[in-house]
Amino acid sequence: MKGRRHPKKTDSGTTRPDFFLSPASVAVVGASSAPGKLSGAILASLKAAGFQGRIFGVNPKYPSIDGIPCYPSLTSIKGDVDVAIFATPASEIPETLKEGAKKIKGAIIVSGGFAESGEAGATLEKAVREISKETGVRVIGPNCMGIYDTISRLDTFFISNERIKRPVKGTLSIISQSGSFAVTAMDELATEGIGVARVISYGNKADINEADCLDMLADDGDTSAVAIYIEAVEDGRGFVEAAKRCASKKPVMAIKVGRTGAAVKAARSHTGALAGRYEVYRAAFKKAGIIELGGYEAFLNACKAYGALKTGAKGRRVVIITDGGGIGVSLVDECLASGLSVPALPDELKKGLGASFPSYFAIENPLDLTGSATDAMFAEALEKTLSSGYYDMAVVAALWGPPGLSDNLPKLLGRLADNIKRPVIICTPGGEYTRKKAGLFGMCGLPVFLSPEAAIKAAVALSGGR
Amino acid sequence: MKGRRHPKKTDSGTTRPDFFLSPASVAVVGASSAPGKLSGAILASLKAAGFQGRIFGVNPKYPSIDGIPCYPSLTSIKGDVDVAIFATPASEIPETLKEGAKKIKGAIIVSGGFAESGEAGATLEKAVREISKETGVRVIGPNCMGIYDTISRLDTFFISNERIKRPVKGTLSIISQSGSFAVTAMDELATEGIGVARVISYGNKADINEADCLDMLADDGDTSAVAIYIEAVEDGRGFVEAAKRCASKKPVMAIKVGRTGAAVKAARSHTGALAGRYEVYRAAFKKAGIIELGGYEAFLNACKAYGALKTGAKGRRVVIITDGGGIGVSLVDECLASGLSVPALPDELKKGLGASFPSYFAIENPLDLTGSATDAMFAEALEKTLSSGYYDMAVVAALWGPPGLSDNLPKLLGRLADNIKRPVIICTPGGEYTRKKAGLFGMCGLPVFLSPEAAIKAAVALSGGR
Repeated sequence: MKGRRHPKKTDSGTTRPDFFLSPASVAVVGASSAPGKLSGAILASLKAAGFQGRIFGVNPKYPSIDGIPCYPSLTSIKGDVDVAIFATPASEIPETLKEGAKKIKGAIIVSGGFAESGEAGATLEKAVREISKETGVRVIGPNCMGIYDTISRLDTFFISNERIKRPVKGTLSIISQSGSFAVTAMDELATEGIGVARVISYGNKADINEADCLDMLADDGDTSAVAIYIEAVEDGRGFVEAAKRCASKKPVMAIKVGRTGAAVKAARSHTGALAGRYEVYRAAFKKAGIIELGGYEAFLNACKAYGALKTGAKGRRVVIITDGGGIGVSLVDECLASGLSVPALPDELKKGLGASFPSYFAIENPLDLTGSATDAMFAEALEKTLSSGYYDMAVVAALWGPPGLSDNLPKLLGRLADNIKRPVIICTPGGEYTRKKAGLFGMCGLPVFLSPEAAIKAAVALSGGR
Repeated sequence: MKGRRHPKKTDSGTTRPDFFLSPASVAVVGASSAPGKLSGAILASLKAAGFQGRIFGVNPKYPSIDGIPCYPSLTSIKGDVDVAIFATPASEIPETLKEGAKKIKGAIIVSGGFAESGEAGATLEKAVREISKETGVRVIGPNCMGIYDTISRLDTFFISNERIKRPVKGTLSIISQSGSFAVTAMDELATEGIGVARVISYGNKADINEADCLDMLADDGDTSAVAIYIEAVEDGRGFVEAAKRCASKKPVMAIKVGRTGAAVKAARSHTGALAGRYEVYRAAFKKAGIIELGGYEAFLNACKAYGALKTGAKGRRVVIITDGGGIGVSLVDECLASGLSVPALPDELKKGLGASFPSYFAIENPLDLTGSATDAMFAEALEKTLSSGYYDMAVVAALWGPPGLSDNLPKLLGRLADNIKRPVIICTPGGEYTRKKAGLFGMCGLPVFLSPEAAIKAAVALSGGR
């Protein structure tokens, strides 16, 4: 990153935290290879991700750990340290942070035991906040997972690759207040073959909050779309302004959990924040140009869609092509219940399709190719309808019962989608065989969903939300 | 079945169609081993399912097909024939059916090309209906898949086991107007390890309709719950009465697709029926005591829940136990948005749990065991909360990041659920590793879901619908 040693300042004079996206060196405080230690798991993650910068350990007990040089304190490290990662007990952190502040630009405090755990923890968190303000050290956390980044190859997540798969390199970035939510979303996306650029789990935000993250990602050339998981926002105005700036450059989507009284209470005890009334958030999202995601599935499906396609649709007109009448009808139900339109085929399109297809096909929207469907029929139907300009996106619902479908179908449709440059979404519900075929669509760059609801949630997000 | 040769009569004097659930013999009309022929695929399905009765072919060209005796016509078959399966061209069916009527009790007409395909087809369908009335031969179809039955081991579905997995023996039965919907649901359930008793795809209902199917399944000792997929019902009163009778004996759930104008139109062209206004159906479902399922996912999740648990919950009070705060909050959101309640833990329960768990756990509902969770903690939390009597069911949201969870967890929870006799639902979102673990819960008899939305849809169905 240009000017790494002379980072930009924010309006209020503090250092902009962009250096977290390209640190040249990190130090793991309390590094240990003892099994079960968080710091050991973090070291393993850093190595597995292939972090390209220098890695230091901080632990007076060892000269080195698994080949990583180890120092008794942050200040005794020979060389610059951009980011220190803390996974030590909460009670020790303020002192260690203060002591090492002049050595580091930023800290990721993974440890829990702060505001989320009661009064004593809240006092510790306040101390961390004050140290950050006094020293200028920018802090992510506490009570977070930190950063998983496919560009810088930083991975501070303390859960093994065996349990939680890491997504490949992509262009979607995720910001999450909840660490477990970030972890689960990453794992799902990785399993579905969807890549990410950066994932930032920011936890209790003693310093860096969602607005700071949005500012970083707004200017990040490696991020094409941003998805945020929010439990509570304290600085509403700052959030809306940052989101507006970011949304003017790339799609920004958000889920707000804790939408009701009881859930608000649960969210409060989770990250120690005040969750607030949902209506206020909806209004803020609208003002900021944020695409609102209504739940976990909507979040995940939107991530899959933007992860695969990078950009959204120009409007809400959907054409549905299927070989299963029941699924076609279900898709129409979901579209109309979600504010998307399913306009009838114009006469000229009907004529063109009628000339190609048997008379017993229903040449309508949805277009039902029946059990006689072949790869070529799907391709022809998609090309004619989507390139007509009458539709903003297509949902192709392929059931794999009909014998005329082959492994060539995903390639054909993937190529067409690339050419037509309008979103093509695959809906392919079913069991083992179908789920294997679903993987083929994914490999051809098409976002693929296993139910009508999931496909239409993605379509809604692509069209800019409800 | 008792009295098989002297079947019961319906009120109107026609033969009750129960014999379809235990035919002693079937004949495949137009049987052929030519590749790509529907009849060949049906023969293969019958064999793969291990149908225990006699199988005949009807085709003047062959004396036998793959070891199955073949006759030139239905009437020339030596021996009784309970059910004839037709997969021949629509235009030939009325004549063949009429000719063979005295030989058979029932017909499953798989072929399409009837009312769903236009006027000529509608005339053929009318002819079939009249032959059924005149001769007393009961007809399932046309334009359907017929029956998949794990009790009689009849399988008339013309799609291979390779493409569409068949569920193991279970106690849930499914009735579906759409063949593709039935196929997809079967395939999903099979892949998830959920069993079924009978699946009946009844198509255009020239004779047998949803009310007849409900009557059969009401009296069926092998069926513990019934799920119906409906596009349109013509005889509303008959449907409500049959559903009422069935629902007084076992849970009956239904999805009605074609809920909006455009979808209604699509449904009409799919099975040639008039779909009608959704409000009318909702009222009818309510009157009949049917649990309404709002979409494909609700249908599938309800099938998974009742398939695994057989019976529902006694009320709507949910306790949530998790090791991921974010997922806990999401579950509360979904519960409250769906009419379920998440009552606070009573003081005595709080005290009991507080004595067992570390002070930094949030002893609330949801109960967050955090990343320190172990198998034993989940078990203790479940046992104490659910056996307290304060809750009608539990949702256990296990994220597999925490190292304290092992393969023993599903066994522990499965055993507890058996003892406490209240529904325990597993919600375990995540990728590859988690999905493998999800299978373990399923093997322990626990219904398992990969998102908060899916889990709560199942919980809603178990509590009797919204």
